[in-house]
Amino acid sequence: MRDDGFHVYDTTLRDGAQQEGLNLTVADKLIIARRLDELGVGFIEGGWPGANPKDTEFFRRARTELDLKHAQLAAFGATRRAGAKAADDPLVAALRESGAPVVTLVAKSHDRHVELALRTTLEENLAMIRDTVSHLRAEGQRVFLDAEHFFDGYRSNPAYALEVVRTAAEAGADVIALCDTNGGMLPDELADVVAEVAAEGARLGIHCHDDTGCAVANTLAAVRAGVTHVQGCANGYGERSGNANLFTVVGNLQLKRGYDLGVELREMTRIAHAVSEVTNIAPGSQQPYVGMSAFAHKAGLHASAVKVDPMLYQHIDPELVGNDMRMLISSMAGRASVELKGRELGYELSGDKARQVVERVKELESAGYTFEAADASFELLLREELDGERTRYFEVESWRTIVERRPDGVMVSEATVKLHAKGERIIATGEGNGPVNALDRALRLALERIYPELSALELVDYKVRILEGAHGTDARTRVLIESSDASGEWGTVGVEDNVIAASWEALAESVTYCLLRAGYGVS
Amino acid sequence: MRDDGFHVYDTTLRDGAQQEGLNLTVADKLIIARRLDELGVGFIEGGWPGANPKDTEFFRRARTELDLKHAQLAAFGATRRAGAKAADDPLVAALRESGAPVVTLVAKSHDRHVELALRTTLEENLAMIRDTVSHLRAEGQRVFLDAEHFFDGYRSNPAYALEVVRTAAEAGADVIALCDTNGGMLPDELADVVAEVAAEGARLGIHCHDDTGCAVANTLAAVRAGVTHVQGCANGYGERSGNANLFTVVGNLQLKRGYDLGVELREMTRIAHAVSEVTNIAPGSQQPYVGMSAFAHKAGLHASAVKVDPMLYQHIDPELVGNDMRMLISSMAGRASVELKGRELGYELSGDKARQVVERVKELESAGYTFEAADASFELLLREELDGERTRYFEVESWRTIVERRPDGVMVSEATVKLHAKGERIIATGEGNGPVNALDRALRLALERIYPELSALELVDYKVRILEGAHGTDARTRVLIESSDASGEWGTVGVEDNVIAASWEALAESVTYCLLRAGYGVS
Repeated sequence: MRDDGFHVYDTTLRDGAQQEGLNLTVADKLIIARRLDELGVGFIEGGWPGANPKDTEFFRRARTELDLKHAQLAAFGATRRAGAKAADDPLVAALRESGAPVVTLVAKSHDRHVELALRTTLEENLAMIRDTVSHLRAEGQRVFLDAEHFFDGYRSNPAYALEVVRTAAEAGADVIALCDTNGGMLPDELADVVAEVAAEGARLGIHCHDDTGCAVANTLAAVRAGVTHVQGCANGYGERSGNANLFTVVGNLQLKRGYDLGVELREMTRIAHAVSEVTNIAPGSQQPYVGMSAFAHKAGLHASAVKVDPMLYQHIDPELVGNDMRMLISSMAGRASVELKGRELGYELSGDKARQVVERVKELESAGYTFEAADASFELLLREELDGERTRYFEVESWRTIVERRPDGVMVSEATVKLHAKGERIIATGEGNGPVNALDRALRLALERIYPELSALELVDYKVRILEGAHGTDARTRVLIESSDASGEWGTVGVEDNVIAASWEALAESVTYCLLRAGYGVS
Repeated sequence: MRDDGFHVYDTTLRDGAQQEGLNLTVADKLIIARRLDELGVGFIEGGWPGANPKDTEFFRRARTELDLKHAQLAAFGATRRAGAKAADDPLVAALRESGAPVVTLVAKSHDRHVELALRTTLEENLAMIRDTVSHLRAEGQRVFLDAEHFFDGYRSNPAYALEVVRTAAEAGADVIALCDTNGGMLPDELADVVAEVAAEGARLGIHCHDDTGCAVANTLAAVRAGVTHVQGCANGYGERSGNANLFTVVGNLQLKRGYDLGVELREMTRIAHAVSEVTNIAPGSQQPYVGMSAFAHKAGLHASAVKVDPMLYQHIDPELVGNDMRMLISSMAGRASVELKGRELGYELSGDKARQVVERVKELESAGYTFEAADASFELLLREELDGERTRYFEVESWRTIVERRPDGVMVSEATVKLHAKGERIIATGEGNGPVNALDRALRLALERIYPELSALELVDYKVRILEGAHGTDARTRVLIESSDASGEWGTVGVEDNVIAASWEALAESVTYCLLRAGYGVS
């Protein structure tokens, strides 16, 4: 558990998910929460239980499936309805029952929003805050308050905006996060307002959006003006121009302002990319600290001087955030992380071997592979480098898939594989609801008689990303497959021009890895 | 010609071009310069004549091919070599001969860089500045000076950094632009330094990089501290994390700080996208002011209030920057956002019709569709509800794709479509690097003779997502396709068990929408 003196509060799973094109399943949310916990954030806002079934399920599954080391879960929700009691409000009940140790209540602090959007009186809005905060506190949860549209509200009616802060604090809210909901603020005006509110004495937080390109600077300005709780999203996800990028904020605070937030910055680049694999949104190569290009040098002028002293041309040592100056040649992986990863998988790598693996990974990454979400492919690669040959349980002769929409509207997908295993030549044909499914079935049908363990193999997720998006279906295709058997999950990756060929590669690696796990020696 | 009181100085063609993956031809540079001139920037830095032949040619062609209305061209270059004379230096000569009315000289202002990178003495560096500035001035050009690594230099040796500023100003440089070359500064430290330098009396400029995510805020902080010349790049292009985004900077200065810079903000969104077409770098949808998502609303909570007063949920009126408010149709959306979206597309929906569309959207979303990134599919749906029938330009009889990995390792992808259009039965076969590519080619081959507008149709992005709750390749598949023609972009969606069938659906809708845009009546 973190020291409570300064809060790093992540809202990727709630406010970040408002981003256009970002749709997270419950399983996605659980994975992202684990990554954020590894990074060492203090709070993870999981969603709005009660308001939508997916978020309710997230909190339910989190109880048994999420074993957080550092972070506490926060459930987001609104103050009770006008004219009712918090104790009787079903949405407040859902917050209580979420099991989250923290509830973050959103409340209106802008007079016009109370009147026009909430359609109640200013006084009733205060009563709603007072009643909901004190009710949840009495029921044993810690309460933070998001003061929505705070800065616009302060401009419109400062006395009322302050009254909201005061009411929430008196009712027992531990933190009042001032939200620049429309994102229109610039740092100095924002800092002036924060300083005035801080004079009231309540503990303050800050929640910024990037509509002026100043979300990070606004957050830092608020910290300087006295807030001790910063909200943001992984990779700057969020509605419109996004929320404050939490990675940039903590990088700046720890490396430039000397805060010790307990964030594992050395894991930050890896985690930023792992999160973007889950969201299936291409990681921003220019992203400060963690972007692929963040420490990439192109200027010829620089290149020679970089050799003399790299720090002449870098604002920080990229290793501090797990990034790499040679990112142009690619690769997140330094030798140290390869050694570490190898050890994690049970392989002791000498310096030379590790270097060799790093080279191989760099080469493959520049061809479009990624191993963040493909442990199994990485392990097969590692074994290949150590053993001098690829682990293989079968040899492919050929395969073919046909997908047809017949004149009567019926869809038919069929695949045939021809392969050699244990000295036999096997031909099998499978049908499926799509070409990959048909290929998967044909491959297993061919192998299950020889390797019965494959019957436990299940594909749990299948993701496709087109690389170098400029040419649509003409581009290179990366397929990530997540598989499981009775005792665990693993990921594999395939990259080809052709989506079916990339899928085949990832499928075949998954089957190989399944057999490796089952203890088969190499044939 | 602009008033000289405040400079908006664009360096897209020089520093922006340092971005990884950005390669501009001379023709590209000329087009971008025209767009920047339309926007109304004061200066366009065209490149480094003499240092590379492409930039020399750019300045040569600019004389006859570039008829700038507002902007002046600036040629970038270095101070003369150590131990020589400016008048004899061939690189200085190239600046003189560029024909540019302005020369921007880069000079070292960090003592360690002078010693380690330039390998000369601190005194000689000052002489190089003095000599080169006064020489070019005497030859009739206006001179600005980029004080490279200024802020790191000021930290290392403030007296020397100031001496550089003083020397350049005394020699006749009109503006000394302080450069945060490594991009590591935060706004308040930067503003403190600028204020100290401004006390010297020279006219100052600012040049920021985004390595701390604060380039825009740093620029604004410098303006507040006294600079009257801001440098930046279109769309935030630049090495590493990019340069200060000039569009965001001028948006903030004109709309939030009351500066009248003469920039045509209403053209800014169009120009931002036009520039990204030339650079062939996909425009950042989250980019402040000009991004596709910059004024897009998803939360249903917001949508009903947006109807009451859109300015409650926007920091500025998007029309001011030539952008539009967009309602994203998502499960969080209600009737209000459907009505708004309908209006945006030019359809007036009655309450009943809107309700009917909401029901249809909900039904489709629960089946896996998403319309957030698929405006075109939503519009086709809307028309179907209003017209009582689907817009159709062709009837599909059947299609088939075959993907084969032959025993010799060669991959073959082929598709055949059979369809009816304008009373004809058409059969066409296409090959591609994958099944979808092959289908796309076959479909267009079949229709292009009848509908020649399809030749302008291009697929710009293709995304596949397997939907939750099911089992890997057995699950439902959602395909999102982004297409463009000469005048715009649109998105379509397909959902089927089978990835190929889902792709077909999205492809067919894209083709239909393209024909609808082209003005074809329904057959």
